[in-house]
Amino acid sequence: MKSPSTPDLVSRFSALVEPGHALVEAADKARYLVEWRDLFQGETPLVLRPANTGEVAAILRLAHETGTAIVPQGGNTGLVGGQIPVPGQQEIVVSLERLDKVRSIDPLGNSMVVEAGMPLAAVHAAAEAAGRIFPLTLASLGSCQIGGNIATNAGGTAVLAYGNARNLVLGLEVVLADGRVWDGLRRLDKDNAGYDLKQLFIGSEGTLGIITAAALRLRHRPRGLAAAFVSVASPKAALDLFVRAQAAAGFGLTGFELMSGLAMEFALRHLAGARLPTSPAPWYVLIEVSSSLSNSEADAIVLDVLAGATAAGEAVEAAVAQSLSQVADFWRLRHGMSEVQKYEGGSIKHDVSVPIGDLPAFLDEAMTAVVEAFPGCRPVPFGHMGDGNIHFNVSQPEGSDRRAFLARWNEMNAVVHRVVRGYAGSVAAEHGVGRLKVDLLADVKPPLDLELMGRLKDALDPLGILNPGRVIRRP
Amino acid sequence: MKSPSTPDLVSRFSALVEPGHALVEAADKARYLVEWRDLFQGETPLVLRPANTGEVAAILRLAHETGTAIVPQGGNTGLVGGQIPVPGQQEIVVSLERLDKVRSIDPLGNSMVVEAGMPLAAVHAAAEAAGRIFPLTLASLGSCQIGGNIATNAGGTAVLAYGNARNLVLGLEVVLADGRVWDGLRRLDKDNAGYDLKQLFIGSEGTLGIITAAALRLRHRPRGLAAAFVSVASPKAALDLFVRAQAAAGFGLTGFELMSGLAMEFALRHLAGARLPTSPAPWYVLIEVSSSLSNSEADAIVLDVLAGATAAGEAVEAAVAQSLSQVADFWRLRHGMSEVQKYEGGSIKHDVSVPIGDLPAFLDEAMTAVVEAFPGCRPVPFGHMGDGNIHFNVSQPEGSDRRAFLARWNEMNAVVHRVVRGYAGSVAAEHGVGRLKVDLLADVKPPLDLELMGRLKDALDPLGILNPGRVIRRP
Repeated sequence: MKSPSTPDLVSRFSALVEPGHALVEAADKARYLVEWRDLFQGETPLVLRPANTGEVAAILRLAHETGTAIVPQGGNTGLVGGQIPVPGQQEIVVSLERLDKVRSIDPLGNSMVVEAGMPLAAVHAAAEAAGRIFPLTLASLGSCQIGGNIATNAGGTAVLAYGNARNLVLGLEVVLADGRVWDGLRRLDKDNAGYDLKQLFIGSEGTLGIITAAALRLRHRPRGLAAAFVSVASPKAALDLFVRAQAAAGFGLTGFELMSGLAMEFALRHLAGARLPTSPAPWYVLIEVSSSLSNSEADAIVLDVLAGATAAGEAVEAAVAQSLSQVADFWRLRHGMSEVQKYEGGSIKHDVSVPIGDLPAFLDEAMTAVVEAFPGCRPVPFGHMGDGNIHFNVSQPEGSDRRAFLARWNEMNAVVHRVVRGYAGSVAAEHGVGRLKVDLLADVKPPLDLELMGRLKDALDPLGILNPGRVIRRP
Repeated sequence: MKSPSTPDLVSRFSALVEPGHALVEAADKARYLVEWRDLFQGETPLVLRPANTGEVAAILRLAHETGTAIVPQGGNTGLVGGQIPVPGQQEIVVSLERLDKVRSIDPLGNSMVVEAGMPLAAVHAAAEAAGRIFPLTLASLGSCQIGGNIATNAGGTAVLAYGNARNLVLGLEVVLADGRVWDGLRRLDKDNAGYDLKQLFIGSEGTLGIITAAALRLRHRPRGLAAAFVSVASPKAALDLFVRAQAAAGFGLTGFELMSGLAMEFALRHLAGARLPTSPAPWYVLIEVSSSLSNSEADAIVLDVLAGATAAGEAVEAAVAQSLSQVADFWRLRHGMSEVQKYEGGSIKHDVSVPIGDLPAFLDEAMTAVVEAFPGCRPVPFGHMGDGNIHFNVSQPEGSDRRAFLARWNEMNAVVHRVVRGYAGSVAAEHGVGRLKVDLLADVKPPLDLELMGRLKDALDPLGILNPGRVIRRP
């Protein structure tokens, strides 16, 4: 692969975008080169900010011609380094942020077509202005972009009822590795006319094409919402409660989050004004129920679930939200959990999933394993129990050395991932692979999976210029 | 490609399955060679009925070695000829019918692992025995098989609430073109550890691999069900009613079917004991609402919708089902609609979808276009309005010659598909491509789509032995 670091190549790429949108100064490039957990520090000769699909296509045509590696970047909220250019590799960053328009919206057909660089919060707002919702939601809502959400098949807290990003995409527009534009912007719920090509690009983290626009599935907003905060004795009790809630609320169970006692302690300690809705307990559950009818209907379902759960001994104590602002307070405790961990020293992260029914056994085994291997370490698991996805994070022992603890990142991972694999789980449930887990993937995936992934990569990006070294390494 | 018609090759393949399961006699092979609309009559030297994945793998290893074309077959209910071996091509049929076991079921995790040859009705029964439902459902329930459902990304009448087959698959086991077995039988709701390989095989109609088992997503059965049969003046009124019903029932709107007056006339004339629930009208709608709470809850939602629709002039007249058996009666009218058309002479079929909001304009334009081009012909559109999928069938003029009418199949298709394309719709919404539409697809798809499909085919089946000539032709 030729190096694009020659002044000539930088100027040829720069000429493809409008003046002021080819960034070469360190100060201008800085915000594209760091990610918030500070695990990756990038380096690039050039950040390009194309204004439209045509400019993205021109960039990829030149990249194809010159063999230049391209790193697409959305809101730069990824947690696995996929969007950060590798030092020394002369990768050019293509930010999609200026492709930020709604192209069309069709409330009758429950769809809208938006450009890749729209922040997810702006997508929400546009849907709501048309009397609909776009249900995908996650903590980085304000800064992440819809193109990145789709490229990483984002999950979040509404997966239980609405599915991952993949389930909410009707069509895509993608710039291919050679700069041609694939127009797959269909808005159909049913289309079996040939292979479903959009599935290739969803979740492929920019390694098979660059998403420039998407047709999204919209929904009606349920008229009613209710939530309960429940203390439980164990993950097994939480699982029983989950089954009960799902039987009672069916489609309407829009949230079911599990939080460990220690994760909650951290939240209470570090989130301003945080208050525990129940007495302290080993585990907590946040249940959210939506109703197509009304708030009182949603409340009735929640109360019915809690009455049954209390009688059955699944729930120790429960608080029902008395207002939408109290629903938001419950969620604030849950959403604050990632952030507060940094005030407790080093934290080693695991974004894992197992079949839901195996979660109690998994948690028990994994917590025992890490404490045995790293005496004094503090596991703080929490996450989307309803879809089997737990953020199994482990904080350093109190008073120990942060750097010494973090130096054992891979060692800790190995302990946790061994348990995950025992339950046929995933070691990259919702945050993807990027650079952080590419070696891990090569290690845990069966060789045939890697071979098939390689065939797809070679079929769609034969020169290997799209986000190289992410997800899968090629020779 | 070598011909497998030599006695030697037939005997080598036959030796791979248990005695009695390599069929060479015409009488034994007959039921694998016809499909029920009688559009395709097949021919094969050999039908193989392997007992398990290992035998399927052995067959494909030998096919790979000898360059023999393989046609996988499920319940033989496909409507586009994908499963019927082409006369003169010496394709070997591999029936999956003996792979018919439940491998495991996990009600807590809402999943079950089944083999490809299980009839869909048996999958339903197994799920129900475990206190759950598998929501995919279609008219050929009793004979179609889950492997075929997945290979064709089947739709049916529950797509509105539960999605297509694609949305109900958690994992797959697939025998690849070279006979290796890909084990993708994961049971996870969230897994972003690499490319989602199962998506390749879902809906690829056996051209990229042979599905031998699947991990399916189960659901809780909603506790309540209600249905209304509504007469409406026009598709536009039906669309307004749909938006109203979706706003009121949200997740719980599990069915919304549109039926033309003439389609209903045919049903009343030919279905034994059929009775029209309302006065005759130009169009009818069947609304089904599910409730997580109760039947009375579902009834209340339906009554609320009907009251609003009547006041707004969307509904002319409505009948609410008074019992579950009446719900079944309403559905019987709808499900009988395909079958009864054959008693009215020749029928030319179109399985199309358009964005839901465009359905009224599409229907108006398409009905006008076919009547202009084929004076006296009788369009009988009906279908899944809630997901934009209409079976736009056209019956011959009364008293005209059946064969002369059917001889103009392609001409009629051209008229209808031109209108479909004007609305960016699909010419193969749920029945797939198979052999029937492979030339059509080559005609209507952009060249880049066909090129990308070809790259996938070449990446996964480089010898072109898997269901050749279906979906896409290779040189």
